[in-house]
Amino acid sequence: MPNSQFLSDLAATVDAQGLLTSAEQLRVYECDGLAAYRQLPLAVVLPTTEQQVIAVLRCCHRHQVAVVARGSGTGLSGGALPVEGGIVLSLTRMNAILNINPLGRSARVQPGVRNAAISEAAASHGLYYAPDPSSQIACSIGGNVAENAGGVHCLKYGLTVNNLLAVRAITSEGELLIAGGEAPDQPGLDLLMALTGSEGLLAVITEITVRLLPKPQVAQVILAAFPTVGAAGTAVANLIGQGIIPAGLELMDQATTRAVESFVQAGYPTDAAAILLCEADGTAEEVRADIEAMSQVLREAGATALRVSCSEAERLTFWAGRKAAFPAAAKLAPDYYCMDGTIPRHRLAEVLDGIAGLAAEHGLACINVFHAGDGNLHPLILFDANEGDQLHRAEALGARILELCVAVGGAITGEHGVGLEKINQMCVQFGEAELRQFQALKAAFDPALLLNPGKAIPSLHRCAEYGRMHVHQGQLPFSNLPRF
Amino acid sequence: MPNSQFLSDLAATVDAQGLLTSAEQLRVYECDGLAAYRQLPLAVVLPTTEQQVIAVLRCCHRHQVAVVARGSGTGLSGGALPVEGGIVLSLTRMNAILNINPLGRSARVQPGVRNAAISEAAASHGLYYAPDPSSQIACSIGGNVAENAGGVHCLKYGLTVNNLLAVRAITSEGELLIAGGEAPDQPGLDLLMALTGSEGLLAVITEITVRLLPKPQVAQVILAAFPTVGAAGTAVANLIGQGIIPAGLELMDQATTRAVESFVQAGYPTDAAAILLCEADGTAEEVRADIEAMSQVLREAGATALRVSCSEAERLTFWAGRKAAFPAAAKLAPDYYCMDGTIPRHRLAEVLDGIAGLAAEHGLACINVFHAGDGNLHPLILFDANEGDQLHRAEALGARILELCVAVGGAITGEHGVGLEKINQMCVQFGEAELRQFQALKAAFDPALLLNPGKAIPSLHRCAEYGRMHVHQGQLPFSNLPRF
Repeated sequence: MPNSQFLSDLAATVDAQGLLTSAEQLRVYECDGLAAYRQLPLAVVLPTTEQQVIAVLRCCHRHQVAVVARGSGTGLSGGALPVEGGIVLSLTRMNAILNINPLGRSARVQPGVRNAAISEAAASHGLYYAPDPSSQIACSIGGNVAENAGGVHCLKYGLTVNNLLAVRAITSEGELLIAGGEAPDQPGLDLLMALTGSEGLLAVITEITVRLLPKPQVAQVILAAFPTVGAAGTAVANLIGQGIIPAGLELMDQATTRAVESFVQAGYPTDAAAILLCEADGTAEEVRADIEAMSQVLREAGATALRVSCSEAERLTFWAGRKAAFPAAAKLAPDYYCMDGTIPRHRLAEVLDGIAGLAAEHGLACINVFHAGDGNLHPLILFDANEGDQLHRAEALGARILELCVAVGGAITGEHGVGLEKINQMCVQFGEAELRQFQALKAAFDPALLLNPGKAIPSLHRCAEYGRMHVHQGQLPFSNLPRF
Repeated sequence: MPNSQFLSDLAATVDAQGLLTSAEQLRVYECDGLAAYRQLPLAVVLPTTEQQVIAVLRCCHRHQVAVVARGSGTGLSGGALPVEGGIVLSLTRMNAILNINPLGRSARVQPGVRNAAISEAAASHGLYYAPDPSSQIACSIGGNVAENAGGVHCLKYGLTVNNLLAVRAITSEGELLIAGGEAPDQPGLDLLMALTGSEGLLAVITEITVRLLPKPQVAQVILAAFPTVGAAGTAVANLIGQGIIPAGLELMDQATTRAVESFVQAGYPTDAAAILLCEADGTAEEVRADIEAMSQVLREAGATALRVSCSEAERLTFWAGRKAAFPAAAKLAPDYYCMDGTIPRHRLAEVLDGIAGLAAEHGLACINVFHAGDGNLHPLILFDANEGDQLHRAEALGARILELCVAVGGAITGEHGVGLEKINQMCVQFGEAELRQFQALKAAFDPALLLNPGKAIPSLHRCAEYGRMHVHQGQLPFSNLPRF
């Protein structure tokens, strides 16, 4: 067995519960939230300390074994999919909240801490951690940093990167890097920014310091119904254009609204072509002013009905519908495929038309949920994997939708990452120079290319095989669309 | 002449006005805003198009000649100081505003455009570009990106990095990189973040797309007087602690206030130990609410006098004093040395005491102006370069102040960059692993090490010679200070 020496060296880096090698134990780790791809790893290692992470990485480096770091496994792009012959480095046992600093308004935590657990720990100080991905009950802060996760409130409060102060991270050679700090800006090149959203390709993060915010005193949400999707899109553009930054601004099309309504009875108007959820938070005075200003813009854009939440319970009910959109989609078809693209906000209506056209062309239904305020689309393609070539058509439609996003000046991922899922679309998003620069950056951190190989950055060879041309901001292949 | 072939190749890359080689023309470029360091370049080249920048860089790469990119030359850390035998690539002729997009709220500009010119061009749409370094009338947006510039309003609106959407940049091998876009987040590794603040070490930026914001309808500023610097520091901590984000929050000590008042008559109370300027902007309703909440916090922290600006003219007068702090310092002593460190906000009073102690130890006076809200200090060390060893003592005191910032968990630069000035302090700020990682990142973009060599990133050899130990967050050499 060529692996036996490696496995016995690996066993020496962690405690007895820290190494899994039996097939039934490994099965749990064969995929992440993108279950269409599966691969058993050689082993799973679960360190409990930074020193153990260093020992694991040095052992893997000595034996030239690939390492896939994994948080809670909720990722949707296959970023934590194991690599054949490689190990999974699970960080779930490193789940301590090391420090809550109410005066400095920061929390220092280990990477396996759940997103929601940070806000729970900070609640007694009236503070919380703002980025709130839909999976926040389960997903880990380490995974959030690796994917630069967003959420419903990131329009106002920013993505993970905007709420991050510092990390400690270990390179594939087992070297500790300390990046960032409590003070603003950082001298030297920005290692913190380079590591954020790097999908496990550059280093393994062992400690994270995040910014905490004071909990808003009041929050209210408007539920607005629109006769056309275009009118809702105009409302979004006008809100932002007038300098109003809602705490959340979500759009759902009619198919989604109907599916959700029969699922959770959130009180959504099922006769509207689109609905918007538009939240304000802050002091009572700020919220009153914002709700008034927002209502006026929504009405002027053609909203046919406006309801403002009158209590915290009603606010949560309005949001419950949005949060149930994915499970509700599962009632419409046996399978769905959740896409994640971004577009310049003002091209929303046009892109929705484009998606409808592409869906019809592929003979599939597609429902639409958006973080409208920041132009982050989540089209859900409905299909039945057991029916003919529907799976294949769903994947093809997904690829075309992402390429449409690129064509209007957007991007192939807003918050789910590239992972394995969208690696071909990277060839559409970027040209050769950028791809080569990504590879050079990767090698600057991980010269042996052991961390999460085959993810996020395609080889030039792969792009040549994929054969789709690099699209720069609306020139190809959707040449009928104006340049933004 | 070994250079004659290079110079004739270089001349072919630009138009007749684009190459300067006579000593009197070169003299203009021998230093930037840090005039203590001077060096004549071999030549200055002034391209007018991206194609010319590519040609210049390819020519320099072929001849292995160093390139220092330069915007308006207002930098304070020697980042644009020429390198012996190298050229200066001045971007001042690339000063076109290419596009103002009011719906997408963005501006696409060439790197030589002045910071203030962007807001001027956007004004007719009711929009502006938020980051406002003190040099904004003169400094270029390209230089702002290279230094990740801040300004009085960056507490609320962020640094350059937070207001940047995309750049086009040319590597030292003459390859075009396109980084970022109008949509949020970006797939792949974050080239945009890597380039921002990279002080001309990674690539030469040829086009920049920035975010524009709607001009606030109203702005008002409070001028608050405090009996002690500690009380003003407490007021800052309490404002931020309560979730109030002023549009600007500046602190001046008594020596600064007195110098300024005799210089511009801004109406500052010269008997106060410290004053705070605390601005609110937004709708009339928001400003009224914010000014009320701020006033209460300031009073509770011990403010002895509060004045709220009653008109736009009075608001500008209040700010005029702050903006005149540097010229006013010049009236106190023949020379001053402006430092730029950051600290965790809640350690402000303690660090002010520390600076006073260090200044006394070095036998020099030091006055203090701060972007208090985000913990960015600008101590001005007063001296007379013609008196004994005062210049030497001023530099030594500056170094010690920066090391104090590091010791409390802060950083050696908030917005002026490392350049040549603070390259030794990088050895205090970072350990060997981070410095080696910076070098690897630099080499990933510029393998021949031709862009701005000798700046920002010290060699390990240099750090060994400097002999000051790496300080990590308060352990050395200020071991009496608690860890944050």
